[in-house]
Amino acid sequence: MVPWYFWFVPLTALFVLYVAMYFFKMMKAEPAGTKRMIEIATYVRRGALAYLKQQYLVVIAVFVLISLFLVLLAYKFHLQNRWVPFAFWSAGICSGLAGFIGMQTATQAASRAAFAASKSLNAGLRVAFRSGAVVGLTVVGLALLDYSFWFLILNLFADSSLPQNDRMIVITETMLTFAMGASLQALFARVGGGIFTKAADVGADLVGKVEKGIPEDDPRNPATIADNVGDNVGDVAGMGADLYESYSGAILAAAALGASAFARSSSILQMKAILMPVFISALGAILSIVGILIVKTKENASSRDLLCALGCGIKVSSFCILLISWVVLYLSDIPNALGIWGAIVIGLIAGEIIGKASEYYTSQAYAPTRCVAEQSQTGPATVIIGGIGIGMLSSVVPVLTIVTGTLLAFFVAQGFSGDKNSIMGLYGVSLAAVGMLSTLGITMATDAYGPIADNAGGNAEMSGLDEEVRKRTDALDALGNTTAATGKGLAIGSAALTALALMASYISAIKGSMLNLEKEFVIVNGNPIPIEALTLVDIVNYYQIHLLNPKVLMGLFIGTMLAFLFCGLSINAVGRAAATMVEEVRRQFREIAGIMENKAIPDYARCVKISTFAAQKEMLIPSLVAILSPIIVGLLLGVAGVVGLLGGALSSGFVLAIFMANAGGAWDNAKKYIEAGAMGGKGSDAHKAAVIGDTVGDPFKDTAGPSLNILIKLMSIVSLVVVGISVTFS
Amino acid sequence: MVPWYFWFVPLTALFVLYVAMYFFKMMKAEPAGTKRMIEIATYVRRGALAYLKQQYLVVIAVFVLISLFLVLLAYKFHLQNRWVPFAFWSAGICSGLAGFIGMQTATQAASRAAFAASKSLNAGLRVAFRSGAVVGLTVVGLALLDYSFWFLILNLFADSSLPQNDRMIVITETMLTFAMGASLQALFARVGGGIFTKAADVGADLVGKVEKGIPEDDPRNPATIADNVGDNVGDVAGMGADLYESYSGAILAAAALGASAFARSSSILQMKAILMPVFISALGAILSIVGILIVKTKENASSRDLLCALGCGIKVSSFCILLISWVVLYLSDIPNALGIWGAIVIGLIAGEIIGKASEYYTSQAYAPTRCVAEQSQTGPATVIIGGIGIGMLSSVVPVLTIVTGTLLAFFVAQGFSGDKNSIMGLYGVSLAAVGMLSTLGITMATDAYGPIADNAGGNAEMSGLDEEVRKRTDALDALGNTTAATGKGLAIGSAALTALALMASYISAIKGSMLNLEKEFVIVNGNPIPIEALTLVDIVNYYQIHLLNPKVLMGLFIGTMLAFLFCGLSINAVGRAAATMVEEVRRQFREIAGIMENKAIPDYARCVKISTFAAQKEMLIPSLVAILSPIIVGLLLGVAGVVGLLGGALSSGFVLAIFMANAGGAWDNAKKYIEAGAMGGKGSDAHKAAVIGDTVGDPFKDTAGPSLNILIKLMSIVSLVVVGISVTFS
Repeated sequence: MVPWYFWFVPLTALFVLYVAMYFFKMMKAEPAGTKRMIEIATYVRRGALAYLKQQYLVVIAVFVLISLFLVLLAYKFHLQNRWVPFAFWSAGICSGLAGFIGMQTATQAASRAAFAASKSLNAGLRVAFRSGAVVGLTVVGLALLDYSFWFLILNLFADSSLPQNDRMIVITETMLTFAMGASLQALFARVGGGIFTKAADVGADLVGKVEKGIPEDDPRNPATIADNVGDNVGDVAGMGADLYESYSGAILAAAALGASAFARSSSILQMKAILMPVFISALGAILSIVGILIVKTKENASSRDLLCALGCGIKVSSFCILLISWVVLYLSDIPNALGIWGAIVIGLIAGEIIGKASEYYTSQAYAPTRCVAEQSQTGPATVIIGGIGIGMLSSVVPVLTIVTGTLLAFFVAQGFSGDKNSIMGLYGVSLAAVGMLSTLGITMATDAYGPIADNAGGNAEMSGLDEEVRKRTDALDALGNTTAATGKGLAIGSAALTALALMASYISAIKGSMLNLEKEFVIVNGNPIPIEALTLVDIVNYYQIHLLNPKVLMGLFIGTMLAFLFCGLSINAVGRAAATMVEEVRRQFREIAGIMENKAIPDYARCVKISTFAAQKEMLIPSLVAILSPIIVGLLLGVAGVVGLLGGALSSGFVLAIFMANAGGAWDNAKKYIEAGAMGGKGSDAHKAAVIGDTVGDPFKDTAGPSLNILIKLMSIVSLVVVGISVTFS
Repeated sequence: MVPWYFWFVPLTALFVLYVAMYFFKMMKAEPAGTKRMIEIATYVRRGALAYLKQQYLVVIAVFVLISLFLVLLAYKFHLQNRWVPFAFWSAGICSGLAGFIGMQTATQAASRAAFAASKSLNAGLRVAFRSGAVVGLTVVGLALLDYSFWFLILNLFADSSLPQNDRMIVITETMLTFAMGASLQALFARVGGGIFTKAADVGADLVGKVEKGIPEDDPRNPATIADNVGDNVGDVAGMGADLYESYSGAILAAAALGASAFARSSSILQMKAILMPVFISALGAILSIVGILIVKTKENASSRDLLCALGCGIKVSSFCILLISWVVLYLSDIPNALGIWGAIVIGLIAGEIIGKASEYYTSQAYAPTRCVAEQSQTGPATVIIGGIGIGMLSSVVPVLTIVTGTLLAFFVAQGFSGDKNSIMGLYGVSLAAVGMLSTLGITMATDAYGPIADNAGGNAEMSGLDEEVRKRTDALDALGNTTAATGKGLAIGSAALTALALMASYISAIKGSMLNLEKEFVIVNGNPIPIEALTLVDIVNYYQIHLLNPKVLMGLFIGTMLAFLFCGLSINAVGRAAATMVEEVRRQFREIAGIMENKAIPDYARCVKISTFAAQKEMLIPSLVAILSPIIVGLLLGVAGVVGLLGGALSSGFVLAIFMANAGGAWDNAKKYIEAGAMGGKGSDAHKAAVIGDTVGDPFKDTAGPSLNILIKLMSIVSLVVVGISVTFS
């Protein structure tokens, strides 16, 4: 049933996972450091495991509830495909597994990277980066494997009474809804992990750095271990689940649009269009491994050299994927191969531009962050105002890039002559997302290695290693901040493109649900049209999904508001949790005599518990907002309202995400810039002001901001899954 | 040409202006206070006049440039009506005049209110509130007068070759574009005034309160006079121009939609539909005067009593307008009078709910602001995080109110049976905006009186009056903060409704421009339709203004981004200007010996100059963004892109505006709550943290936030004015 070349994908997936395991073993073979280092690493790992265990228990409970709903929907009301409840679990488990393996790797790697850095910078980089690669490759490998598994299963067992082309449309649209499991898992991981890590971080910084004047990661600070646990559960496990979701979402959306765009071509051609996205992703995975193997740096390398080393690996991978995807497309006999290849290229370039723009706004090397640092001289208020202003301005380039990229990808994929097919254009847009994420294996390695280096630094500090070691891990960490901004840029950029594709899929899925209505014809612009013959534009006209329809406009308002509500809820959650943490840290300093003199050990575990408890309690409501809003709007305002909702959430979520990530990044690096000696350096008033800015930025850049891309997609996918309800009952 | 009942409007306008003059004279007749008080008031007035003079010079230059463009557009390219350039000036002048008169009143009233407050609270309230009434009534009177003037002129001179009903459509759509002058003037006043006042305020607070520990409005602080000038140019002149714009925009939009909705009815009925909005506004103006005369309070009144006194006046006005508008509609013979009346009622209620929601989120009496105050105990970072979180959450109720209100107004105005006409629904939505603003005369009086009381307090402080006086003016001022939040809620709520109406007018204006194309037919959904016979839905289909069109979606992204860009630009401008001010104030304390000991007078004028210069320099770019973006998007993405742009700017601008106003209000009142004794009171660390929160909130609530409603409408109106360009050249 599946063509021979399909097997390339699962084989690649297994190979990629094998390489990930190989890197993991290499890392484990490194010496784990001194006794003290191992002890601290164990504290952190235990905290992280305890947190993840708790988190997964909550997630499982939610999954059980939702799958009951899905079972009802599919088996009782026949409003959804019967495979959906199972695949929902499978994607959720894979995404969770990616996060878990990432966290395991990161917590094992921290002390090893610190120990290696005590030998040389290059050794430290190698351990941290290879461990990051484990995370990146695991995500990519699992996503490709899960895709292959379900593609096979559905091709074997799905309803075979339909003609082949229609059957493939049903299969790809069913698979699209699988992404719901991945998105939901990712949302919990990002929001929960984000609340955990930032409550700990804010609590640790506010009391430790500002009030007590002790350095970051000082073992006297009771919240230090919780802070390091947070780096693992938020920045590694959360990011792993997040990018798993982005990666598989992009592939699934492109496959579904490929099936629709080539619905009237031959089955062979349609199959090629469906498998093209996953094929290119698999190629990108192999090329990522090549890129990872290239990254190397000399001893005494400056941070610029380090960045170049990483950049070099990414560039080689990206360049090769451009060449090879052209060859593949050329050989595939797909019509307008040049245009489709163009869409992939546009995606890669757009990702690069968004990453560079993030770097410009958040790196100490450029004017914006320096300007924020300067404003710290007039106190915390001007630092905050400056960072917010710059964060808002920083949305201009990414928005213009996405706008230009989307329109170009749309038009080149439509082809330069002949009949214009808007689904072909949307297929191009979704392929741009696939292109943007094709080398995720390596870009994520450069992203995940940041928190590992950060933890290595924490471990070095707490174990009392030589200052030189801390300097080396700091160099690695500073770099990690920049690469993290790039990773977030990719996540949100690809989310914009994927969400557009999902909106199109939503409108296309409406037709499927209309077939369940007990009508044969609908009246569109005065003409009766059989439901089977409806085009997407007919559906748009029938439901008046245009901007004069007040339901669409009101959906737009609600969607915009929801993005803000979601941010407000998660920021407030961090504020509340951090305030509890601050009280606890103050209490320990007050009540446990001798902490400051290193004569007593603070109660680390209590701080970990506070963060865990807060995260679990606070992550539920924002997640419910994402799940319930499309259902409620669908019931009250119908499909027109839902499309408006998705449009509003998408556009404002995108801009908010960029704003939050870059404001947070600018504050963080302005602080680091001052710590490196500018504006009076550490301990100056300017530094204190900058620390406050950084603290405000923490929930921006690590809780609310990076969750928005998941929110957008989760809302789209929930809409898709419940489309039957909106069509039937509204 | 005009019906007899039309004359009610200009007569009312003259009467309202006469009452305003009467109140002004009454205020002038009050004693102006001691010599010191008069001296300080003179400083402030001179500063404000100098600023306004400078501001109007810049505005005139911009107006000249734009009117040259309009002249070309109208007379050379025939893409716009030939009356537009003139009316553009007339509206701009009236709006500027409203601001100027308001500023004159406020600066004369401050010392008088302070002096009256030294006698009794009630006397202080009377002077401040009556002066606020001058501002409110001037705005309302001038708007009605300008409307009447142009309605007469156009009825006398506009192209009489058309059939009467079509002619009225052209006249009302032409008048709609007049609002451009008002909007542009308002944008400059809000942004420029906002930058001025907040640069001075932030500068004065940061050095005075935080660093030197001297109270607000202490004459030793060099930025004190500039701060008081700012209250006048930002909060009075800026607000005056802003609400002038909202008020006339709502009336004009409703008139245009009334003309379209009743295009196929008799000319008499159409005329009634056109004049209904302005008629109801005129009735509301008279009832506002009634309400103003009712407001009174006892000596020893608590702030709750004060709020009740003001609320009582507003309630009487609102209740009467409900009754009387029902009578008018009943007598008018307009079909579905009940539905249309319903839309007006919905608008009034929606305005009330939005106002109450603002009050809930920003008043010390409720949980959110108290929660922000509590978070000040853990330092400035948690205060900021808390305020931002609460600001974001606070958008939920206003959005749901606008959504429900819009949909209800739309459906009740469409009528409960028979043929559904979507323009009737939109007419209802625009009447809801008119209803919401119908009692603007009194709501604005309660709004404008806040800065007057604030200035009175400043004057009392600087003149060394008794502490009791300051307490009384503080009670008045605290109240002003709450009423100001209500006023901002009205401005943004009515903007959402008006902007929807403007979007509909835009689509309707497309048809007019299409008549200029050298085509007779266009193909819509495969059928050739003569341009003259196109319905709005045909236009929507022809230009594919639906959410599957990537141009619409990309417009949505750009619009959302522009709202953030605009905020970022104006917040950054405040940040930069405030930093300059901080340096200057610090310099004066350092270099002018004896300021702190009251032995030397600081150089007040220099601080005023710094704010003036900064405001003039910084207000241009945000304003250009508003003017140029619809033109550029229209050229590149056509009308589909422009509609997307407006939708994005509207939805995200609305939510951002609420977020900023309420976050800022919550910080301000959390600080006041602490100053009143909570969390350790004045001088505690919690207080210092709250002052930082308040400072961050200043540009939020007084610069960027209140400008957004103007931005939204200005973009809509510019789109309307240049619709010919988009249709012809894209």
